[in-house]
Amino acid sequence: MIKADVFKANLDLVNEGLVKLTWGNASALDRRNGILYIKPSGVDYSVMTVNDMVEVDLETGKSSGQFNPSSDTAIHLHLYREFPEIGGIVHTHSSWATSWAQACREIPCLGTTHADLFYASVPVTRVLTKEEIEGDYEENTGKLIAEYFQGANYLKQPGILVAEHGPFCWGKTVQEAVMHAIALEEIAKIAFHTIMLGKERPIQQVLLDKHYKRKHGSGAYYGQQ
Amino acid sequence: MIKADVFKANLDLVNEGLVKLTWGNASALDRRNGILYIKPSGVDYSVMTVNDMVEVDLETGKSSGQFNPSSDTAIHLHLYREFPEIGGIVHTHSSWATSWAQACREIPCLGTTHADLFYASVPVTRVLTKEEIEGDYEENTGKLIAEYFQGANYLKQPGILVAEHGPFCWGKTVQEAVMHAIALEEIAKIAFHTIMLGKERPIQQVLLDKHYKRKHGSGAYYGQQ
Amino acid sequence: MIKADVFKANLDLVNEGLVKLTWGNASALDRRNGILYIKPSGVDYSVMTVNDMVEVDLETGKSSGQFNPSSDTAIHLHLYREFPEIGGIVHTHSSWATSWAQACREIPCLGTTHADLFYASVPVTRVLTKEEIEGDYEENTGKLIAEYFQGANYLKQPGILVAEHGPFCWGKTVQEAVMHAIALEEIAKIAFHTIMLGKERPIQQVLLDKHYKRKHGSGAYYGQQ
Amino acid sequence: MIKADVFKANLDLVNEGLVKLTWGNASALDRRNGILYIKPSGVDYSVMTVNDMVEVDLETGKSSGQFNPSSDTAIHLHLYREFPEIGGIVHTHSSWATSWAQACREIPCLGTTHADLFYASVPVTRVLTKEEIEGDYEENTGKLIAEYFQGANYLKQPGILVAEHGPFCWGKTVQEAVMHAIALEEIAKIAFHTIMLGKERPIQQVLLDKHYKRKHGSGAYYGQQ
Repeated sequence: MIKADVFKANLDLVNEGLVKLTWGNASALDRRNGILYIKPSGVDYSVMTVNDMVEVDLETGKSSGQFNPSSDTAIHLHLYREFPEIGGIVHTHSSWATSWAQACREIPCLGTTHADLFYASVPVTRVLTKEEIEGDYEENTGKLIAEYFQGANYLKQPGILVAEHGPFCWGKTVQEAVMHAIALEEIAKIAFHTIMLGKERPIQQVLLDKHYKRKHGSGAYYGQQ
Repeated sequence: MIKADVFKANLDLVNEGLVKLTWGNASALDRRNGILYIKPSGVDYSVMTVNDMVEVDLETGKSSGQFNPSSDTAIHLHLYREFPEIGGIVHTHSSWATSWAQACREIPCLGTTHADLFYASVPVTRVLTKEEIEGDYEENTGKLIAEYFQGANYLKQPGILVAEHGPFCWGKTVQEAVMHAIALEEIAKIAFHTIMLGKERPIQQVLLDKHYKRKHGSGAYYGQQ
Repeated sequence: MIKADVFKANLDLVNEGLVKLTWGNASALDRRNGILYIKPSGVDYSVMTVNDMVEVDLETGKSSGQFNPSSDTAIHLHLYREFPEIGGIVHTHSSWATSWAQACREIPCLGTTHADLFYASVPVTRVLTKEEIEGDYEENTGKLIAEYFQGANYLKQPGILVAEHGPFCWGKTVQEAVMHAIALEEIAKIAFHTIMLGKERPIQQVLLDKHYKRKHGSGAYYGQQ
Repeated sequence: MIKADVFKANLDLVNEGLVKLTWGNASALDRRNGILYIKPSGVDYSVMTVNDMVEVDLETGKSSGQFNPSSDTAIHLHLYREFPEIGGIVHTHSSWATSWAQACREIPCLGTTHADLFYASVPVTRVLTKEEIEGDYEENTGKLIAEYFQGANYLKQPGILVAEHGPFCWGKTVQEAVMHAIALEEIAKIAFHTIMLGKERPIQQVLLDKHYKRKHGSGAYYGQQ
């Protein structure tokens, strides 16, 4: 079931235009059994099947089956360990979000589209040091992301731009993580053009509060019960 | 019939690329019976059916049926009350129009594509005050839009950009409102690039008159009888 | 036959993404019989049939049949009279070409993509005067286009941007006119980004000569015999 | 077999949106027999069949069959002779890569998307001289490309932007060349927006090393064995 969700999530990323070639990966965690399901590394989407999703042990990081898991698996593992309430992670090189990541700029909250999903900017990490890159690169990328959230809430900012790399998003499920990746790409696109039109100042806090809380928390009134 | 039109209009917005995820809503008003039909809040388009469209009483604002109406329903209700000649309203977060909205800039009339539909700029509202946001936010957004049209004709400018939010369009029918939303998105895109190419001055009034009146009013000669 | 070509050309413009809503028109001329075939004005593409194409007499400008011809018919007629070697005309409000038209800027020849089709810039007209707009607007737009070509060759620059309006393209057949409209839109898009990257100076004349003449004239060696 | 690969590669370029009209060509080389297979010149993709691919002798440059080979064949031949390890070449006028080519700017490595494929900038050639253009233009374009790689490794930078023209990519097979063309177009798009957001400085060498070597060489750990 969760394996099928991961498979579908990986295909959704392609169908939504967020992933070209093999540039992306989605995973989900079965917390009860401590098993992570993730896309195999570098496998062509057109031949990938649900059974090609790789099982990885959350504790040991060991995978089973014929395929290598995504080369970014250590990032996923680190985030699942650090963020106890998430159940899915999505990484893409989607065009607009990656442009901001490469520019090493956070995306300021410039409107309600953003405020509906991110209760603050879309953050950007610092650049990794030489030692972090030459050491355990993927593990260190996971630490880099977690570092930011020592002073922030990972559920209220369900994604981040890794500087000079690209976006990572997460959610309670992998479907929610995909939804956040779709939203982030659109937010990044709109913010780019807003800034080109001359506005960089974030919206007032009260509007951010209003929109975020319409959708999240005990006072939410968006959607159905 | 009008319910089916509303259902189709909501799907058209997705198919035209104006709505991602659940970011948009279309409604139509049956003025004879005082009944508004509108998209349910936050329902996935892939499972939505015509019967999920929510009926709302224009006078009382009360809805019937199993689903909550769009969280923006109070905006729609206010506009139907204020603009007696409209029969349909569309709200989206379409990418280009939203960029202008977030930049808090009106779209100047830079060419005949614009002049065919909007007999002036595409206006932008002022920013809501803290009190307006913390009070009845959606109702106040409706008032904000209506405020602009105290000095303007809502049929000659069939849409507006709500600052830091996104576009609202309307028409005599919901189909016409959808058409205006499609046109606005394209106008916003072309205007963005025109401005990047260095031209911000609106076209001369006489050309605006000519194109608008080719299509509207007693001297119109565009289209068929 | 030619009627079917005109019908197909109008649909091709939509399928190629050059025409939204009803913003465009294609025509072809049967020079032997002096009959122009053109899209009816403001008819929805989804219901339009080949028999809805309107016949117009080249000499008198009179149309027959149940539908009004395109409101731009007088422009087409003028161009067919002035440019004796053309057999098809296409007008669109395609996004990138219209951005340049609205900016009142010619598109300089910045690369070989352009040089393959236009043996010079893509020209832009002057702005119409108040008198020209208030007078016979469409006829005057045709004259405006022809005015430019008193000092230029309409076959070597098979299209023009009407200032504050949009592109008109032509060719020996309506299919060729459609091809030129597709090419112009792409040329306009690439030129926009080239200029944003800081280069506005046209390519050297010798490269323009080389590419244009690879495809056109007695020394052409592109394509098949 | 290789002929079918070339046919499919040419169609893939259209389906991926890298080629409009007939603006592109893909070829593959059968090194054992010294036979190049390439798209015929200027043939419409909708009628092209696998048997229309033209055979060209690598040594003599002579073609056989009813169709003329691509007018860029001499460029392909030169590159196959100069770059002994490549088996496929792709040329397009894809929109973003061509914008950089027209701007005569190399694409700096601004992120890991780029670093995964190009172990340095995406280079741009110098402009051809008048003599080179008026002489054997295609052959000289091939020489121009090869000139750059006298001081660089053509496998670590599997493509180049020909100034004022567009991109050429290659690979060990034609499928790999297509993949590089897809990647280059996306890299060019993301780099454009990154630069507009204010960042032009390349990533640190250690990150470039890390990403490139994750995918290439004896220490690679991306993908499956």
